[in-house]
Amino acid sequence: MSEQTQERAGILITDLKEIATMAGPPEGPLHGGALGDLEIVQDAAIAIGGGEILAVGPTQDLRERFRASTVVDATGMVATPGLVDPHTHMVYAGSREDEFEERVKGATYLQIASSGGGILSTVRETRKASMNRIVRQSLPRLQRALRHGTTTMEIKSGYGLDADSEEKMLAAIDYLRRLQPIDLVSTFMGAHWLPEEFTNNREGYIRDVIRKQIPRARSMAEFCDVFCEEGVFSPDETREILAAAKDSGMKLKIHADEFKDTGGAALAGSLKAASADHLGAIGPEGIKALRGKGTIAVLLPGTSFYIGLGRYAPARALIEAGVPVALGSDGNPGSCVTDSMQVILSLACLRLRMTPHEALASATRNAAWAIDRGKEAGILEEGRPADVVVWAAPSCKAIPHQFGTNLVHQVYKKGVLVHEEGA
Amino acid sequence: MSEQTQERAGILITDLKEIATMAGPPEGPLHGGALGDLEIVQDAAIAIGGGEILAVGPTQDLRERFRASTVVDATGMVATPGLVDPHTHMVYAGSREDEFEERVKGATYLQIASSGGGILSTVRETRKASMNRIVRQSLPRLQRALRHGTTTMEIKSGYGLDADSEEKMLAAIDYLRRLQPIDLVSTFMGAHWLPEEFTNNREGYIRDVIRKQIPRARSMAEFCDVFCEEGVFSPDETREILAAAKDSGMKLKIHADEFKDTGGAALAGSLKAASADHLGAIGPEGIKALRGKGTIAVLLPGTSFYIGLGRYAPARALIEAGVPVALGSDGNPGSCVTDSMQVILSLACLRLRMTPHEALASATRNAAWAIDRGKEAGILEEGRPADVVVWAAPSCKAIPHQFGTNLVHQVYKKGVLVHEEGA
Repeated sequence: MSEQTQERAGILITDLKEIATMAGPPEGPLHGGALGDLEIVQDAAIAIGGGEILAVGPTQDLRERFRASTVVDATGMVATPGLVDPHTHMVYAGSREDEFEERVKGATYLQIASSGGGILSTVRETRKASMNRIVRQSLPRLQRALRHGTTTMEIKSGYGLDADSEEKMLAAIDYLRRLQPIDLVSTFMGAHWLPEEFTNNREGYIRDVIRKQIPRARSMAEFCDVFCEEGVFSPDETREILAAAKDSGMKLKIHADEFKDTGGAALAGSLKAASADHLGAIGPEGIKALRGKGTIAVLLPGTSFYIGLGRYAPARALIEAGVPVALGSDGNPGSCVTDSMQVILSLACLRLRMTPHEALASATRNAAWAIDRGKEAGILEEGRPADVVVWAAPSCKAIPHQFGTNLVHQVYKKGVLVHEEGA
Repeated sequence: MSEQTQERAGILITDLKEIATMAGPPEGPLHGGALGDLEIVQDAAIAIGGGEILAVGPTQDLRERFRASTVVDATGMVATPGLVDPHTHMVYAGSREDEFEERVKGATYLQIASSGGGILSTVRETRKASMNRIVRQSLPRLQRALRHGTTTMEIKSGYGLDADSEEKMLAAIDYLRRLQPIDLVSTFMGAHWLPEEFTNNREGYIRDVIRKQIPRARSMAEFCDVFCEEGVFSPDETREILAAAKDSGMKLKIHADEFKDTGGAALAGSLKAASADHLGAIGPEGIKALRGKGTIAVLLPGTSFYIGLGRYAPARALIEAGVPVALGSDGNPGSCVTDSMQVILSLACLRLRMTPHEALASATRNAAWAIDRGKEAGILEEGRPADVVVWAAPSCKAIPHQFGTNLVHQVYKKGVLVHEEGA
């Protein structure tokens, strides 16, 4: 093809050993055998223009077809969609490394929490902090997540636990959209824990969430999430709060069956929630309840690992039952202190026994569907936003294989190079 | 102090919240209560000149005392010595992500190894590869380790398993010294595994190691290590090989009691080896045998984690017995695929129940003593080489607290800025 007849591209990334596109019909999250049966393009290139993917295909074809302003030689590397982290608590004030030592010495997560540490210490710090301070402290976390390959991220409120403080958190998330390139999805989570002032008045706090917090959060948050767990919020309380959230126009998520099977997953299925998250203790009934409901099982192996439960969500049983599975970091100040989805990919293989390809699909395409971004994120296909990670790895399988090391070479967000390792 | 009377410095790193210097008498590895009782300088600065530490102290004092060509504002950050990784297998050809999927599906490390995969597949790749190819494939691993904070690293041979190939590996390690800034310490490990051609002739291979390999390795390797384990090399075979190595002028290390307590730690103590490494299965007798022998217990929690044993070395018992403990990555192509000592720090706290300060001391000062670099590395003190990591962390305790995320801001090697995150 002569130069005159070539199409123009902004960027042409060439000579990739592999691209895992995550594409392939039908639209929607991958489940069952399809989760690990990925479209892998060999000796591949990506053409980017106008912030979008123009084409993905063999390097030779794309070299002939496109004339690009910038050609990036990615010899020996691989590419995937930007990672999508569908479950985080990344916005808060303070840090809790002092209680880390207590945990090292044997105190459990719930013991620390019930003695005023844990979540409640972050609530105290977050209530005290100005929105600007919360933004300033949270920004480096998002910058680190980006450097580790995350280009779309959900963030929950839930360290305010009163109408003003929850609104402040949601405003901080909104402000962070302007300061860095990761696309952020907001979730209101006033029902994350019972605040100290309501210790003896559970019913009063649920009224506060429904009557004061939800009306102010509805315009700022796309999802509402509730921590449904023994000692936190019961399935009945969860149902009541989520009914109000749904009436207010929010989509639904549940922290379900993390420590005990309290029927959270079943509730998520019956409400057709967007996702049921954690599921470390989900039983066969819960798995059955999630089938065919459009609810995505968001697994958070980082938390099971970090708090040392020795028990992980039954990923294989969920996949075999045909439930669509996604992976999230659960990045938070106490029970899973990480900003990286890469370490989650390794844990998914090593502890959830997911194959490397299953893990990658669960952290891209399926994770995007878990936060209703399936049409924009988690997939490399013509016309989609060009959110791309180029990895210094010899194959896509080698990404989860490497543990605790950042393998990211470049991150593109909407076609712009937003991070380059060692540059 | 007037400008005329100020001393000159090349670099002054100022306004650090904390510096963990790892200094404090007496010289040697820290043990018992001293391991976690670190000298922490608050509101601190480091003056660097001529590649060495000129001073560590309060920012105000050092600002008055020194006039520096470059002042680095490290407000809100902390500093430690560069991390020392005293146990790696980072130099080899090929990668083994294909067998990773087998492991995910349930095959054990020893099963894969005994069916010709595992170590032996890396041996085949490494024998086949030229020295240049081994260097080219290994260099990115060292570059990643540097970006994650490692400034001194031990590397073992042991994927050659014949005199020519072992020499080629040691030559590759030597060549890598010229290509990147991490100080490398070479260990000969011909007795890493029994090569295929000696399957039915153990005695023959031991003769090969002693008569052919050691005489050629002696001028290239500082240490000799043997994998003393049921099904690999027995304590008697280990003793015989190490006796020959010692006669050749090499210092001694043992892969001891990783899966079974075969008396490897006791042997290390009786030989006054520099270190006994792994120790996942060490018993009370082994711990007793290590006391007061100058042998350092090098713990490798990454491997226990990665292969999913569910059992970790008894770090607390070793510390309480007064045995000096160090941490290493064991970075290798199969049983612990990582280049990062940061993730090892987290695992040391989360799984070995070491405090954050104990973990940091074990990955700096004590790790340096485990490879006989105690006088040069792992400590920030006047006159020592300026190997420094500046961390984007609010305290030293926060470094292990964060899991799977690279928190390194800057790495200095012998006073030269060799890596800066986001720069």
